[in-house]
Amino acid sequence: MKIILKPIGTVHSPLKARERRDASKIVSEIILDTELTEGLDNLNEFSYITIIYFMHKSHKPAPLKIHPKIRKDPTPVGVFASRSPDRPNALGKTTVKLLEHRDNILKVQGLDAIDGTPVIDIKPYIPDIDAPPEAKVPPWMTSQG
Amino acid sequence: MKIILKPIGTVHSPLKARERRDASKIVSEIILDTELTEGLDNLNEFSYITIIYFMHKSHKPAPLKIHPKIRKDPTPVGVFASRSPDRPNALGKTTVKLLEHRDNILKVQGLDAIDGTPVIDIKPYIPDIDAPPEAKVPPWMTSQG
Repeated sequence: MKIILKPIGTVHSPLKARERRDASKIVSEIILDTELTEGLDNLNEFSYITIIYFMHKSHKPAPLKIHPKIRKDPTPVGVFASRSPDRPNALGKTTVKLLEHRDNILKVQGLDAIDGTPVIDIKPYIPDIDAPPEAKVPPWMTSQG
Repeated sequence: MKIILKPIGTVHSPLKARERRDASKIVSEIILDTELTEGLDNLNEFSYITIIYFMHKSHKPAPLKIHPKIRKDPTPVGVFASRSPDRPNALGKTTVKLLEHRDNILKVQGLDAIDGTPVIDIKPYIPDIDAPPEAKVPPWMTSQG
């Protein structure tokens, strides 16, 4: 089975190449295809939105084990236990702050997608369903790990 | 531009058809393709994981304006301001509790995907990057709205 998706827009970002960095302060724009503009109505009633995008510069074939740079232990972990862009389906998912909505353009903060990234979906971020209250992560995900 | 994805597994769920319901207590299984099993290593170090899946029963073509059932105001909203399964690219994204990992099978709680849904990606849920602390939603998203 194959699933065929058509991008709904494109990321315009000061990030021009793959590199590990903190994107939390990066401001970028999502330019939506103009025929979909009406689908953005009411989005600015949410302060955060989740962007799903296709990481078009990811490496193929994706490895099944990878070593997250944050992890001091040299043992690799399963790719699905990581946020590596090199994964069987190279979809990225980032929750960003919606700074401004103007026509078919969304200005957002915190998007770790490089310039030219195809956007697949935009969803409102809803803490009641998106943020479980007691989620645990392994020690290696933190600076103490 | 077309993006072609290949499912990595399938949802086995007691939910057999599209319907509005609270899935927070639903227990289902994700059966991963066996050649990808190694990619699940270390996933059980996280208590919550995010599943991205293809809502294969969504309606096409997707409308640009929809009326969320939770909304009392009869004015429709933009599809990207909703979590409707009927959207230009019918991808669902749900953060679920990981109950058990055994070989290529993940038992999870809270997945609102119906039986047979193709799974596209699995990511660890990391509150530091996935849960912004002060996210606002419009009044119509709540029972008071």
